[in-house]
Amino acid sequence: MDYVNGPGRNHLFVPGPVNIPDQVIRAMSRNNEDYRSPAIPALTKVLLEDVKKIFKTTSGTPFLFPTTGTGAWESALTNTLSPGDRIISFLIGQFSLLWIDQQQRLKFNVDVVESEWGRGADLDILASKIADDKEHTIKAICIVHNETATGVTNNLATVRKILDHYQHPALFLVDGVSSICALDFRMDEWGVDVALTGSQKALSLPTGLGIVCASPKALEAAKTSKSVRVFFDWSDYLKFYKLGTYWPYTPSIQLLYGLRAALDLLFEEGLDNVIARHGRLGKATRLAVEAWGLKNCTQKEEWYSDTVTAVIVPSYIDSSEIIRQAWKRYNLSLGLGLNKIAGKVFRIGHLGNLNELQLLGCLAGVEMVLKDVGYPVKLGSGVAAASAFLQNSTPLIPSRI
Amino acid sequence: MDYVNGPGRNHLFVPGPVNIPDQVIRAMSRNNEDYRSPAIPALTKVLLEDVKKIFKTTSGTPFLFPTTGTGAWESALTNTLSPGDRIISFLIGQFSLLWIDQQQRLKFNVDVVESEWGRGADLDILASKIADDKEHTIKAICIVHNETATGVTNNLATVRKILDHYQHPALFLVDGVSSICALDFRMDEWGVDVALTGSQKALSLPTGLGIVCASPKALEAAKTSKSVRVFFDWSDYLKFYKLGTYWPYTPSIQLLYGLRAALDLLFEEGLDNVIARHGRLGKATRLAVEAWGLKNCTQKEEWYSDTVTAVIVPSYIDSSEIIRQAWKRYNLSLGLGLNKIAGKVFRIGHLGNLNELQLLGCLAGVEMVLKDVGYPVKLGSGVAAASAFLQNSTPLIPSRI
Amino acid sequence: MDYVNGPGRNHLFVPGPVNIPDQVIRAMSRNNEDYRSPAIPALTKVLLEDVKKIFKTTSGTPFLFPTTGTGAWESALTNTLSPGDRIISFLIGQFSLLWIDQQQRLKFNVDVVESEWGRGADLDILASKIADDKEHTIKAICIVHNETATGVTNNLATVRKILDHYQHPALFLVDGVSSICALDFRMDEWGVDVALTGSQKALSLPTGLGIVCASPKALEAAKTSKSVRVFFDWSDYLKFYKLGTYWPYTPSIQLLYGLRAALDLLFEEGLDNVIARHGRLGKATRLAVEAWGLKNCTQKEEWYSDTVTAVIVPSYIDSSEIIRQAWKRYNLSLGLGLNKIAGKVFRIGHLGNLNELQLLGCLAGVEMVLKDVGYPVKLGSGVAAASAFLQNSTPLIPSRI
Amino acid sequence: MDYVNGPGRNHLFVPGPVNIPDQVIRAMSRNNEDYRSPAIPALTKVLLEDVKKIFKTTSGTPFLFPTTGTGAWESALTNTLSPGDRIISFLIGQFSLLWIDQQQRLKFNVDVVESEWGRGADLDILASKIADDKEHTIKAICIVHNETATGVTNNLATVRKILDHYQHPALFLVDGVSSICALDFRMDEWGVDVALTGSQKALSLPTGLGIVCASPKALEAAKTSKSVRVFFDWSDYLKFYKLGTYWPYTPSIQLLYGLRAALDLLFEEGLDNVIARHGRLGKATRLAVEAWGLKNCTQKEEWYSDTVTAVIVPSYIDSSEIIRQAWKRYNLSLGLGLNKIAGKVFRIGHLGNLNELQLLGCLAGVEMVLKDVGYPVKLGSGVAAASAFLQNSTPLIPSRI
Repeated sequence: MDYVNGPGRNHLFVPGPVNIPDQVIRAMSRNNEDYRSPAIPALTKVLLEDVKKIFKTTSGTPFLFPTTGTGAWESALTNTLSPGDRIISFLIGQFSLLWIDQQQRLKFNVDVVESEWGRGADLDILASKIADDKEHTIKAICIVHNETATGVTNNLATVRKILDHYQHPALFLVDGVSSICALDFRMDEWGVDVALTGSQKALSLPTGLGIVCASPKALEAAKTSKSVRVFFDWSDYLKFYKLGTYWPYTPSIQLLYGLRAALDLLFEEGLDNVIARHGRLGKATRLAVEAWGLKNCTQKEEWYSDTVTAVIVPSYIDSSEIIRQAWKRYNLSLGLGLNKIAGKVFRIGHLGNLNELQLLGCLAGVEMVLKDVGYPVKLGSGVAAASAFLQNSTPLIPSRI
Repeated sequence: MDYVNGPGRNHLFVPGPVNIPDQVIRAMSRNNEDYRSPAIPALTKVLLEDVKKIFKTTSGTPFLFPTTGTGAWESALTNTLSPGDRIISFLIGQFSLLWIDQQQRLKFNVDVVESEWGRGADLDILASKIADDKEHTIKAICIVHNETATGVTNNLATVRKILDHYQHPALFLVDGVSSICALDFRMDEWGVDVALTGSQKALSLPTGLGIVCASPKALEAAKTSKSVRVFFDWSDYLKFYKLGTYWPYTPSIQLLYGLRAALDLLFEEGLDNVIARHGRLGKATRLAVEAWGLKNCTQKEEWYSDTVTAVIVPSYIDSSEIIRQAWKRYNLSLGLGLNKIAGKVFRIGHLGNLNELQLLGCLAGVEMVLKDVGYPVKLGSGVAAASAFLQNSTPLIPSRI
Repeated sequence: MDYVNGPGRNHLFVPGPVNIPDQVIRAMSRNNEDYRSPAIPALTKVLLEDVKKIFKTTSGTPFLFPTTGTGAWESALTNTLSPGDRIISFLIGQFSLLWIDQQQRLKFNVDVVESEWGRGADLDILASKIADDKEHTIKAICIVHNETATGVTNNLATVRKILDHYQHPALFLVDGVSSICALDFRMDEWGVDVALTGSQKALSLPTGLGIVCASPKALEAAKTSKSVRVFFDWSDYLKFYKLGTYWPYTPSIQLLYGLRAALDLLFEEGLDNVIARHGRLGKATRLAVEAWGLKNCTQKEEWYSDTVTAVIVPSYIDSSEIIRQAWKRYNLSLGLGLNKIAGKVFRIGHLGNLNELQLLGCLAGVEMVLKDVGYPVKLGSGVAAASAFLQNSTPLIPSRI
Repeated sequence: MDYVNGPGRNHLFVPGPVNIPDQVIRAMSRNNEDYRSPAIPALTKVLLEDVKKIFKTTSGTPFLFPTTGTGAWESALTNTLSPGDRIISFLIGQFSLLWIDQQQRLKFNVDVVESEWGRGADLDILASKIADDKEHTIKAICIVHNETATGVTNNLATVRKILDHYQHPALFLVDGVSSICALDFRMDEWGVDVALTGSQKALSLPTGLGIVCASPKALEAAKTSKSVRVFFDWSDYLKFYKLGTYWPYTPSIQLLYGLRAALDLLFEEGLDNVIARHGRLGKATRLAVEAWGLKNCTQKEEWYSDTVTAVIVPSYIDSSEIIRQAWKRYNLSLGLGLNKIAGKVFRIGHLGNLNELQLLGCLAGVEMVLKDVGYPVKLGSGVAAASAFLQNSTPLIPSRI
């Protein structure tokens, strides 16, 4: 089964699924249980309260769908919108592209705002469209907080400012798949109406939970939305929330206990410390890239992502060869370049349960791979740049002071 | 977290989620992996081949959706049918009811054939409707192989015979959630077009895989079906099957390895032996119920289910009290009566990775609970009846001969 | 590796190693750690305090040897006695025999007091020997609290009374391997000088910890004992206790975390409730044996063991065939008859993390096996007798009230 | 329990206990079993055959003691020697010191050959003592293959040559605790009479198995050895080997399955490849130390250890502060300086299931720690030196070619 064993650990640096802490693996290593016993609703009740904290919301209502991020997208859209509704969506990379594809197949009228891959969502165009839309034909703004394909983080606060400035009632739907629990995200403060993430990203769980959080306004919209939906319908959940049994259909017992353990670890570290740690790891990675003489796919600092860095390789190198070599020789898993940038970039995911030395091991590995594929990197240069920063900025582990 | 610890093991006898073998728990106790590495496609390729065996199909195409049985239902329907399509569906208990509810919400024109709860699908009515439908307005027959709420198994071979007799082209869609891997199920022989199950049932895995298998005719229907779908769309999977990367979005690495281990155990035991074991456990349970002087909710032997037995309690007893008492005093998890039969029946699930002595422990527990709640059972009577049968019929464990 | 897989769980009813709670398996499923970091000493410190509770001692000093019960025996003896020392030891079954063999090989002058197997230690003889020993040539009394081979529990309080009555200074060394954490054991109250157990018995852990607890008097004796010892020497531990680093050599990190989890479960249930549960399970087992028309190897009620029952089979049956059949056909593991009683008894272990329905499943299995091997048992009779008692005596699970 | 959680993984670089592969952790995550069932002897039989391969012996007899390395030492000595026997033992660091202490406490007449810590065993002195010992008063040579405290590997082939040259019949006893499965070790070729290791070292298991392998000559010596022993006595094992039940007392079921998994991984990688990998990691570490401008505690290249490197710190630095800082800030576990060299060296363990990037992460961490404690290291320098070597020498992972 594990016929690709290598000695030692796999160094998992794709931008998801990410490393699961041992504490969480342990918590999930268990038999099934009757989800109609008193135990599971009691567990769920507290989980739902605690999940709100990672969205930074008090007014939102969370749903733990047994699905992936793609399913969470579908749930966000079909519960709040009706076929034909005009929505604005930003195409800035492969994952925003896939979401737009979904929006179109779900029969919404998608007003696509495209940027060059490596740039953020063009919020100037958004502002002008919102300004023009006196009749409020725009029903929703759909935006990926962090585009995982290019390592671009969009400015959500600005989106809110634009909507507020024009007093526009459009719903604000956010894909937070590679941001929530890793980047600064504030559902209530930014007036986000639906935010969503997947368990296998910064929450550091296995794939299997599509976590969707809806504002009161989104819940209101769901009452009249005409999109056909059953599995992804919020109303079934809301009915069971009221009953206190919580689950319209069978949840994964293991993921519930895993989520409990994951949240416990996040809260023990402190959500702000978690975000600061991602900040450190992201910056360290970018310093290494610079030291290698390579370019970040992300064109401007304002869009730099602290969860994933897409690195442009020289044109004489096929970035897929970097991924292959990393895996075959060093047991290092890096992210592929996707679609338009296939072969042109490789990606280093630096999100989830990860620390400084893990990243430095990865960076050392990338250096060797770069040399393997013919790029004249100075071995140690990226590690030196990253560790110069980390040695200054890494705090003591609070539990060990 | 485990604040409801009792000494010793939980005796899990709900009809799902069921007991996970330790071998499978172990196989799943692992970190995430890059699902785009060569390892996961290689694993998936073989899994898809092997999954066909549990459906007894060689021509079908399986899909491993990261979802539950409810999602698998939705996938079966939306890929093959268009809104407004006339379908025949049998209402015989809570789960067939829920599927019908889904069918209606998905905008199909559902021709509901209702039976008293405790009886099987009325196939005479089906025959007459099919006979009448010269113009083939009926696009699909939707039937639950085993109604988990009442412990009723429908005769799928007869459905096929009726369709063949009238040369009717309706699609034949089967919910095999509480039957596949436990009851005799033959996709190819019975001409089933879509069959589906959930990982947490007889496969004895955690919840999280909705396994759908489509016949060539179903795949053909999917090309013209107009139901809106994205997450549950087969076409995305088929595209990635062709690419050899298999996954349109992130699968659960853990469930893939778990499925591998579960199938290995099933094949080692032998699928026919697994089905025979369920036959033994089902019969033993029914003999115990009879010995207790209680009635099986299932009205005729032809519908007896070998995966779940719903037991009718005397009218002076609330069956919910049985479930509560079993859990609180004996760490025994039994199934509730649902909807119409709430309070009137309790259910013993006897499916999945289970053996004779586990069942006898459960039956001994049920006896004590019955006495606790005031039913004058003769302690030991059910166990005696069941073990008289089992002592004669249980084979040696093949690996230990 | 697991080539002897059977469907469903193994029913483990040997009197050790016993079932490990899932919570403990989870706690142990972990990587190694540096045992010289601050974490392991901190963990150990609290463990040592808590371990004293299971011995019911406040003045004792516990040692967690990386060994088995046999090693714990050796540690108890060699730390307190010198070669040639006269000790009294009771031969009442295979395990007391093995301990005596060890005592002789360690060059002590063993005064063996033998009883028929199935009877307890002859304390009248002890009393007379102690009465005669005016010159205190007897340096220690060695006694097995619970003889696992015959299911005989000795009366330790009486031993203490005898020693006190004659004001005899002999050390009181107790093998509590199959008693501590299951039977009533009171180190301080009974003036036990060395008590010991193994992790794989009522503590419900894997094999690997030989837990020895020494009274102040035993520690004093250790200062002058001339038995050669290094690995089992208490003095190395005491040195490291003082240093606060606790370990003279590498402990099993996994067993330390496992012990933590095991103690947490025991304390959550309450040590007195644990003992009461063993009382229930023991009595239920004996009632079943009686109902089967078979005899308990233990000849008098005063010696009945609540952790293991040895059942005498009719002379026309070889009890080994019962063990073989149970394992091959029902996945039930029973204990062999040992040495003198090989072929004549089989043993049901009912200790550790076990509950009523697990035991009833075992008893139902034993009934079927008895019939398989030709004993005309009335199926259900033992279960009926046991459950009649259990249904009256089993309390609600405290955490679920 | 895990109150010292840090984000991300612990980087475990003490020279034991070492990292356990996930495959092994999984294999051990299991309930107890009856060790008298047919399954455990069958498992044991093959394990004993396979264990001989890691000692490179066909004529040796292995024993899997439930103990630690200290217990394995005691078993090696007490089975082959009698009190008063003259033995030669080499004092070159803390672990050889502890073994000598044990030898003296076990009442052997120890002829200690001391070297400066950082130097290997003085084999010239051995040669002269052997040459002088015409009457064969020397009964055994005891030598640590790899002194874990100083990172010194002794030349065992030379020991054999000396004995052969003088046709001296002394037993040749080797502590292979930090060498076997990592360094080149050849029991048969070098005529080693007893070799031993502990499970928590290069075998990459938890602590708990003291593995001892005895030559036919050692087994012969055991027949007349007068050292008192019971728990560690080979004869009990040999008796049970003959019976085919293998265990004189309860083994750890979990460690047996773990050992199976560990050996499977070692054999899959290939023992020679495992040794070559340790060679790479050792050399890479030494290159880093050199690049940092620090000195290896090991004084000559001939003694360099490929499993552990002891690094001398400048006199103005307390090496304990390095260990503390590494653990508190970077979740990096390094080895302390022991006894004479406490405060003067820190140790990097690079043995067991470990790969290149794990080591580079560690080296990057050491650099930051060195800077933290005031040593003017050039960040990246050690990583650069190590990776320059590794990038040239690391082979593709065979299973991934």
